[in-house]
Amino acid sequence: MHSSAQDSNYLKWSIVLFTKTVGIVQTKYFNFKNLVLSNGKILAQVSVAYETYGTLNKYKNNAILITHAFTGDAHCAGYHEGDEKPGWWETMIGPGKAFDTNKYFIICSNVLGGCAGTTGPSSKNPQTGTEYATDFPAIVISDMIKVQKKLIEFLGIKKLLCVAGGSMGGMQVLQWAMDYPEMMYSAIPIAATSKSTPQQIAFNEVGRQAIMGDSNWQKGHYYNKDVKNNGLSVARMLGHITYMSDISMKSKFSKGEPEPNEKFDFNADFEVEKYLRHRGTTFLDRFDANSYLYLSKAIDYFNVQKPNFLPEDKNIDIKFLVISFESDWLYPAYQSEEIVKLLKAKSQKVTYCNIHSTYGHDAFLLEAKDETRLVGNFLNKLYSEVCSSEE
Amino acid sequence: MHSSAQDSNYLKWSIVLFTKTVGIVQTKYFNFKNLVLSNGKILAQVSVAYETYGTLNKYKNNAILITHAFTGDAHCAGYHEGDEKPGWWETMIGPGKAFDTNKYFIICSNVLGGCAGTTGPSSKNPQTGTEYATDFPAIVISDMIKVQKKLIEFLGIKKLLCVAGGSMGGMQVLQWAMDYPEMMYSAIPIAATSKSTPQQIAFNEVGRQAIMGDSNWQKGHYYNKDVKNNGLSVARMLGHITYMSDISMKSKFSKGEPEPNEKFDFNADFEVEKYLRHRGTTFLDRFDANSYLYLSKAIDYFNVQKPNFLPEDKNIDIKFLVISFESDWLYPAYQSEEIVKLLKAKSQKVTYCNIHSTYGHDAFLLEAKDETRLVGNFLNKLYSEVCSSEE
Repeated sequence: MHSSAQDSNYLKWSIVLFTKTVGIVQTKYFNFKNLVLSNGKILAQVSVAYETYGTLNKYKNNAILITHAFTGDAHCAGYHEGDEKPGWWETMIGPGKAFDTNKYFIICSNVLGGCAGTTGPSSKNPQTGTEYATDFPAIVISDMIKVQKKLIEFLGIKKLLCVAGGSMGGMQVLQWAMDYPEMMYSAIPIAATSKSTPQQIAFNEVGRQAIMGDSNWQKGHYYNKDVKNNGLSVARMLGHITYMSDISMKSKFSKGEPEPNEKFDFNADFEVEKYLRHRGTTFLDRFDANSYLYLSKAIDYFNVQKPNFLPEDKNIDIKFLVISFESDWLYPAYQSEEIVKLLKAKSQKVTYCNIHSTYGHDAFLLEAKDETRLVGNFLNKLYSEVCSSEE
Repeated sequence: MHSSAQDSNYLKWSIVLFTKTVGIVQTKYFNFKNLVLSNGKILAQVSVAYETYGTLNKYKNNAILITHAFTGDAHCAGYHEGDEKPGWWETMIGPGKAFDTNKYFIICSNVLGGCAGTTGPSSKNPQTGTEYATDFPAIVISDMIKVQKKLIEFLGIKKLLCVAGGSMGGMQVLQWAMDYPEMMYSAIPIAATSKSTPQQIAFNEVGRQAIMGDSNWQKGHYYNKDVKNNGLSVARMLGHITYMSDISMKSKFSKGEPEPNEKFDFNADFEVEKYLRHRGTTFLDRFDANSYLYLSKAIDYFNVQKPNFLPEDKNIDIKFLVISFESDWLYPAYQSEEIVKLLKAKSQKVTYCNIHSTYGHDAFLLEAKDETRLVGNFLNKLYSEVCSSEE
């Protein structure tokens, strides 16, 4: 009996694992030379870390590019060999999910300037043989898109069924529509803005000052020195506050009422302090301080309101699904409404939904049910229009 | 003619200076021994920096205690000799103003644990002859109130006409009502809360980690060493973001659209960065890092919901005026509404107003017109009830 129950559990687990997830996945690498950046500078060698799930159909028109947020990476679904945790958007990507890998070919790559496999400040400069550090050229969101376009072309895809992402991922989606509108059927910017506001820039600047004010930063040349940047951990702690909401923090950290000691030892007295410290510390193991500086600057400069959203000289026909979340105060709903207005002014087809949530900005990772309904239906319709007719 | 115009300007200036302000003021000091703290620890010597404006009447019932915010001080009105800037609440305190110094005797003291004249971690421990640093005992808001009570008694006052303050000042107001309700006729808590929330604690903790993560902090023993704590400047920058609002930052920092350089130098590109850096740097000259740690911890532990707001065994008769501001997201209006509910549950007389403002938490320092109307009328009525009848 016991053994049978175990078998049954094993079976259940197998079903969960092998029907609802893309399963074991691997990060792949694509290399190319001489990337000309928006500012005219040239990166001699670029390596791009990317993952794909599902199968590209023979017309190569079922590909969806997923763009990741600030500290995200190419691993958005499935499990790396030996990992217990899946990719960052596992709830949305897989067989039968919103981004249905039975139908779509999903692509996700680490952004330029990042530190999870794609060329960034921690990569070695081929001209010097040492890490770029702060000699890495300045990059903007457009440059990330340029790299993704190279990857798409390398994969033999002429036009993406969709580009979708949240937060900085949403900015990349909008930048795609700005830079290569002819290469996409649809766009799903989530919890994003059309231009960084002074408040958003301010939060990023506090993080940067924390990093650069740390004596271990050493003007960015800290590679091969066994030092930790506490400032990066402080930046991450602040980040987490802005990703949550007043309400979600209250409900997550509702246990216990500590009393002050006779002498403050400045340990983590409250649950929320323990949580943030843990998040700050573990972040040091997976993220590069210079990448934090570069990517946050790219976010600060993001502005598709300027000079003019969507090029005038092209016949643009993109279907947009714009999503925001009620309790998101970092990228509040009114900023998604501004995106909708910009699109409407250009006579674009836009569906907009402000999803009810108490999770704050993190909602784009957590409100899978509502997002699945919206994204699933949107893509299904598109799929039948674009892909089925040619099959 | 020119000379006459100059005279006229001088006259105008004199009128402004000498009729609308308390003019030149001085900080005074009051010393006492053996303060028993809430945790049982004893501070052998306490010095209190305080200022007073107006005249105490013969019944000593026209005294108003002003309590200051986190990084404030005793200098809330008028000018110190040679200063160009007045005290921090000049708009509200002076002849003919809301806190009318023609009628009321205004008292304001620097809080215990602070660094503007009152005993705190940067004070010398009489037992060792060196600064307390992190050997300073843990303090809570109740301990600040205890020190203020000593000062009030020293000034010969048995019952205050009012205790009023914003932010951490508002917490002190509520703690007064909790600890010494028989010593006050009225209370004006502004932009405050009855208990610190996880989000508020989280922001404070980020500031503390920035300070303590700075290698110059040296576990708090940095006095007499010529070092700067960049972390304190980072904490202050973050503070400023939380004191403003998304809207107020947009309208303050609306000029210019910088372009990224070819290489990021991580200078302040945007106006908001320049502003915050300046605020952070100048803060180092006037505030002590350890005081930041101690006072922020006292704020974190603030909780008048526990065990029970207002003691059951006393016949409490305090008139409350509770004020909040629409765009304040650090101490949002709902938290003032919670204070009102707690008071109503204790059958207290409460007037509540949520003032329209786009200034965020800083509104309590900036929305002088609406505050003057509310506070002025509230105090006038009280004055005629309490003070006039005995005159």
